[in-house]
Amino acid sequence: MDNFNHLKSKILQTIEYSAISEILRVINKQGMISLAGGLPAPESFPIKIINELSNLVIKKYQAKAFQYSATEGEKELRMALVDYLKEKDIETNWENIGITSGSQQALDLIARVFINKNDLIAVESPTYIGAIDAFAPYQPKYIQIKTDNNGIIPEDLEKILKTKNIKFVYLIPTFQNPTGKTINLKRRQQIAKILQKYKTLLIEDDPYSALRYSGESLPAIKKFIPNQTIYISTFSKILAPGLRIGFYVAPKEILKLICTAKQTTDLHTNSFSQYIAAEYLKTGHLKKHLPKILLIYKKRLEAMLQALEKYFPKNFQWTKPEGGMFIWVEGPEKFDSLKTYWQAVDENVAYVPGEYFFVKKNFGKNTFRLNFTNVTEEKIEIAIKKLSQVIQKNL
Amino acid sequence: MDNFNHLKSKILQTIEYSAISEILRVINKQGMISLAGGLPAPESFPIKIINELSNLVIKKYQAKAFQYSATEGEKELRMALVDYLKEKDIETNWENIGITSGSQQALDLIARVFINKNDLIAVESPTYIGAIDAFAPYQPKYIQIKTDNNGIIPEDLEKILKTKNIKFVYLIPTFQNPTGKTINLKRRQQIAKILQKYKTLLIEDDPYSALRYSGESLPAIKKFIPNQTIYISTFSKILAPGLRIGFYVAPKEILKLICTAKQTTDLHTNSFSQYIAAEYLKTGHLKKHLPKILLIYKKRLEAMLQALEKYFPKNFQWTKPEGGMFIWVEGPEKFDSLKTYWQAVDENVAYVPGEYFFVKKNFGKNTFRLNFTNVTEEKIEIAIKKLSQVIQKNL
Repeated sequence: MDNFNHLKSKILQTIEYSAISEILRVINKQGMISLAGGLPAPESFPIKIINELSNLVIKKYQAKAFQYSATEGEKELRMALVDYLKEKDIETNWENIGITSGSQQALDLIARVFINKNDLIAVESPTYIGAIDAFAPYQPKYIQIKTDNNGIIPEDLEKILKTKNIKFVYLIPTFQNPTGKTINLKRRQQIAKILQKYKTLLIEDDPYSALRYSGESLPAIKKFIPNQTIYISTFSKILAPGLRIGFYVAPKEILKLICTAKQTTDLHTNSFSQYIAAEYLKTGHLKKHLPKILLIYKKRLEAMLQALEKYFPKNFQWTKPEGGMFIWVEGPEKFDSLKTYWQAVDENVAYVPGEYFFVKKNFGKNTFRLNFTNVTEEKIEIAIKKLSQVIQKNL
Repeated sequence: MDNFNHLKSKILQTIEYSAISEILRVINKQGMISLAGGLPAPESFPIKIINELSNLVIKKYQAKAFQYSATEGEKELRMALVDYLKEKDIETNWENIGITSGSQQALDLIARVFINKNDLIAVESPTYIGAIDAFAPYQPKYIQIKTDNNGIIPEDLEKILKTKNIKFVYLIPTFQNPTGKTINLKRRQQIAKILQKYKTLLIEDDPYSALRYSGESLPAIKKFIPNQTIYISTFSKILAPGLRIGFYVAPKEILKLICTAKQTTDLHTNSFSQYIAAEYLKTGHLKKHLPKILLIYKKRLEAMLQALEKYFPKNFQWTKPEGGMFIWVEGPEKFDSLKTYWQAVDENVAYVPGEYFFVKKNFGKNTFRLNFTNVTEEKIEIAIKKLSQVIQKNL
């Protein structure tokens, strides 16, 4: 056999071609300053602490850290997360917390549990590509919720829920990917009320709220409607992504459904890394280390905002997030971020053209996403300056 | 919202009720000697070595062991596996090897890549429940291939492939789960020829071949038809299952399809544990540690075979495997292993009734599976004696 095309499933065909992977293939070339990725800075990883905790976990838990274990996750980690979440104003029990192999897996499992072909999912406009990728094999259809600078517009959400049968609403309320936007407190309460009124499930994806560099923390929407929210978060941004530890908080009945789905896909998440994550919380290491991560990123965010201010044309706008990893840039209507992308790449600067973050065609062609966490301030300055020159040639 | 039943997907409904989980729920009670599980012995885990390797990996690879990484797997591990597989008589390149979150994930991803609803999959009779669970969400139908003491009967395989359109054949050729049976060399070659003739893909699941306590190693079927086999194996039995490191060897085109599917489900497998597994191979620790694992299991296998010989009625038969984790017992036709199960549980002994390992109803009601790896010799003797007493009451 030298060809397997005839054996491919229909599901695979729904995800096989990734336009964004195609265009991002070029960014690995030598000398490229990539503002396209979504990677945390490797210098933010608490490597010494992980080493210490690895030794501690082996000593403390012995074989238990290496045996097959519960699909729900290790009790030690679920218990430690109760306290961690309490500080984030989320009151829950350990039995409501499930562990996944990164938050990407939580998205896949939620899709598997809930989505039938052609089900309607309501998402922010724009929204996170990784979630769309996770949902794709289950073949939903999408409704875009209108957004402004404070995130989704509650009135538009209500209009949608009133007229359409929506399976769930998927939101990243804090430092959204790709925009960096945050839904304000008033809107969070309004959104909760609307979801309650229409009895609609909320998937609240929250990978970034721990990465706050200024301003006041906001409660998760989950706080206002705990019984119809699946709250998802991750250790990828506060510890290290390579450990692949994500988690979710959900009504027990939903947790059971997610674990039923998880059981058949990978049995359970890496136990050794779950214990490392548990001890990272329990020993107080996160509290000591997080400020160091925040300091690195705060400087990079400021450097990028200053460079944009200094170099970018006056008819461009961008978000000014108080945290997270991304800035969203909007050019004048005629600006074509995909066309400019190839010219920028020739100049060794990469970003993600905005249109890829929309679930509908012909949106966001004048927008793009910039990442500031994985590039030094010096390189940010150089990249934004070059990018500005490329842009100005096209205006 | 206090009920989510109306939101459940059809996919979830295909896997929601697990009859075997229901009956195995009772085995956690105090004092139970469980021969039902499939767990490696915790005392077989090389905990000191893992500790050493954790420190080594952190020192050697630093942040690289903790960053987001390739969906295919870490190159260091894929390269190390080339040498490991060579010693197992499997010649391959690192680019043909993919890493998964346990071999369970390989099964899920293969199903996602290939299975459409109602596709026919041919499996051993009986076969591995975890594979059936992994395939279930994709809703295939099954054909059982007839087996005798040397595994599947090639003539029956040929008959099936001649008359049916089979998407793939799924086999565990060595120390099969649940039977402990091994397909002999002549049959391996015959099976390869038949698969080649009918251009049918083989999924060769090989978690146990490293656990050989006597007799001669046999080549994988993959050796004879490398271009149409996906060979799957795992570190769960030779290192530790909690690290969730599985791997597969496949034609490059198929590897690409599996990675497309994996990308959306969990991005990539835990990098820290991948490096630990790589160093476990590279430093020669596996070679030094494996004989210790084999010694533990060899004694337990012998203890179980001796106890069966000593206590079991003469009209019962069982397999005498040269490796692996399981023995398969067949009673006289009228023997009902599910009925006896509940009586055995009352006497604090558990096994798995054989009917759960068949994809068709009304098979194997007089059979059951015994695990010998996770119980000491003393307890094996006690359990088999008690089990024999329960059985004799029912004859």
